Amino acid sequence: MSVSVEIISVGNELLTGQTVNTNASWIGEQLIQYGIQARWVTTVGDVADHLFHALQIALGRTQVCIVTGGLGPTHDDITKNVVSDFFGAKLALNDDILTKIKQRFEKRGISMAKVNEGQALVPEGATVLENDLGTAPGLLIQKNGKHIYVLPGVPHEMKAMMSRFVLPELQKKYDTGTFRIKNIKTTGIAESTLFEKISQRAAIQQLTTIAFLPGLGGVNIRLSAYGQNSDDAQEKLERAVALLRPDIEEFIYSDEKKSLENVVADMLTEKKLTLAVAESCTGGLLCHKLTNIPGSSDFFERGIISYSNESKQNLLGVPKELLIEHGAVSEQVARVMAKGVREIAGTDFGLATTGIAGPGGGTEKKPVGLVFVGYADDREDFAIKYNFANDRIGNKERFAQAALDLLRKKLRDR
Amino acid sequence: MSVSVEIISVGNELLTGQTVNTNASWIGEQLIQYGIQARWVTTVGDVADHLFHALQIALGRTQVCIVTGGLGPTHDDITKNVVSDFFGAKLALNDDILTKIKQRFEKRGISMAKVNEGQALVPEGATVLENDLGTAPGLLIQKNGKHIYVLPGVPHEMKAMMSRFVLPELQKKYDTGTFRIKNIKTTGIAESTLFEKISQRAAIQQLTTIAFLPGLGGVNIRLSAYGQNSDDAQEKLERAVALLRPDIEEFIYSDEKKSLENVVADMLTEKKLTLAVAESCTGGLLCHKLTNIPGSSDFFERGIISYSNESKQNLLGVPKELLIEHGAVSEQVARVMAKGVREIAGTDFGLATTGIAGPGGGTEKKPVGLVFVGYADDREDFAIKYNFANDRIGNKERFAQAALDLLRKKLRDR
Repeated sequence: MSVSVEIISVGNELLTGQTVNTNASWIGEQLIQYGIQARWVTTVGDVADHLFHALQIALGRTQVCIVTGGLGPTHDDITKNVVSDFFGAKLALNDDILTKIKQRFEKRGISMAKVNEGQALVPEGATVLENDLGTAPGLLIQKNGKHIYVLPGVPHEMKAMMSRFVLPELQKKYDTGTFRIKNIKTTGIAESTLFEKISQRAAIQQLTTIAFLPGLGGVNIRLSAYGQNSDDAQEKLERAVALLRPDIEEFIYSDEKKSLENVVADMLTEKKLTLAVAESCTGGLLCHKLTNIPGSSDFFERGIISYSNESKQNLLGVPKELLIEHGAVSEQVARVMAKGVREIAGTDFGLATTGIAGPGGGTEKKPVGLVFVGYADDREDFAIKYNFANDRIGNKERFAQAALDLLRKKLRDR
Repeated sequence: MSVSVEIISVGNELLTGQTVNTNASWIGEQLIQYGIQARWVTTVGDVADHLFHALQIALGRTQVCIVTGGLGPTHDDITKNVVSDFFGAKLALNDDILTKIKQRFEKRGISMAKVNEGQALVPEGATVLENDLGTAPGLLIQKNGKHIYVLPGVPHEMKAMMSRFVLPELQKKYDTGTFRIKNIKTTGIAESTLFEKISQRAAIQQLTTIAFLPGLGGVNIRLSAYGQNSDDAQEKLERAVALLRPDIEEFIYSDEKKSLENVVADMLTEKKLTLAVAESCTGGLLCHKLTNIPGSSDFFERGIISYSNESKQNLLGVPKELLIEHGAVSEQVARVMAKGVREIAGTDFGLATTGIAGPGGGTEKKPVGLVFVGYADDREDFAIKYNFANDRIGNKERFAQAALDLLRKKLRDR
């Protein structure tokens, strides 16, 4: 981990709080996988002097600098001009890029605006990094042993270009293999309870550094280890994981970087099983997560967002009497929703949510944060009650995660 | 806005992507309300030399510096030591603080750990800023006309202390009332096209600074103005907006900070109209966005995620022949989906999406990024074709945004 990296984020919107700088944290997270740590993040506005100053400072203290933002077509996009000035390189029109930008617009059936032409200007001597998802190409400038990558600020464009160009290059050059990292993802357990359940903490800490990262979807445990070489570091990690696992096995859904929906999707696909979903309180989030997975049409048959009581009756066959007797947010209704959607869809599994996301709708007996997750397969149907206490968006997230985790456990035991 | 402010964020977790730096964006957002702009944000790890260097640079270019993080009780909390070194001030035990920390622990029925004693050390000459929510007090150091605030990194502690101490002081000293800001949110138009459509750019720029902030959901335009006083600044903004609006009126969905789903939800609620949604390619995202709005059950009746062809036939009444003749991704099917869901739900509006989110499933005639948005009300039903070119997640986002914007326009004209 001898290389030092600085991230320079460009944009007034980052300084005025309109945009949170998730680009920098994403880049930092990617780099650390290879044992490369970003040492500084400097954020500057759309002000040429400030960016120039930031480049001066960064190149005085780092070998690699990753600049994001300010590559758009309008007047407030200053990055390319400043970088050219900084390296004393002229901007020249790149015909290949111009053609590609024009093709992008043609594809969408619109003609290129004059102002986009400027995006095809490239500082002489710079390497162009192709942008498949937008009109702003990236740049790599190499000078005096320093590497300066310039990428667009639009997150999905930046990420695609980091993954395609920057990360492989940096890994090849700087990953010394003496540092290894491992993520263990858990859900359904609080950080402090998780911590206390791990009985071999002292032994684990002799091998690795352990960090607990709580979020709405659960707690991620990050283990990192240094070794004499990569095998040594890897072995330390594996010994630590072996000490860690037994106490918390049931809460672990992934020891890679997979999301819970990804884990469930892989299990369904592998076992050739299908799923239908009935959502009330999660309002589409569960289906959205599942359909974020490429190829989800192989296992996901349909979803029903039965927000009104009528839709629960008509589409899922929930009896009116059940709704009156127990209320829409009840164990009974959750179970019938899961059973109902499975039957009409003809799938292997049915999954359902009904609860109170808030902020309104809570009562003493049924407070905000209460959710019932319904489950149905060919052998059984039931519902499980959970209590969470977040805001509306946070509750939806936790409810969906609880439903996915229930399905994961059932798939695992199958 | 003559004062310049730098934020220094301290913590390894910010550099490795474990924590997103929301503290800096929150501070920036607060400051801009008083016309004070953070000019730089520098993030450093828990490394004394790096923080020392960051302070040197910051005090060379700013009058006010706000440092957050690294005030905890453990070995990796370095901020107070570095600040003391930097100003050549000795650390002295502050009895008042020590008493308060002890009381905090007593209240919780636990005795104070020895390690917490260090939190009662204060650099000589510094003003203590009380922390009602945690054990780490804040500091204000004044030297050579510069102000350095040191605050804990725990967000709710930092925010309380900013609101109680820092913001009132900065407002009193530096809010000249001469700066005002306005956000105009647009969708359905590319940044460059939007830019060129604004014919009065020169006149607008004489009044205000204009910035274009593109994202998946559309382009936000930010206008900011200085005036002799707040009325003058406000008037400049209003004149600029009046010059801007006519050319791009149809693309503007909000001139406040509202999301598109919020705008649509408000229109539906106000007009007491109801909506049902049929989603294929957006896979639940459209319903998810709508149900993120508190009180959405007033207008949102149901959603159907008809991923399979069978579900399109059974739940929405899409004729099998139509699916065979035109394919699921077609103008015809989108229209019938919207009509179908509106009819079975008995709502005022039906909205539908069918398209190819990718990465698979694209053909030459129907490429990834193609979507048809179906619309139905009591008078008409039709579908509109759009072409986008993002990754799966980005396409879903754009598809959902296009559907919401179509509904917005229909609601506006009603």
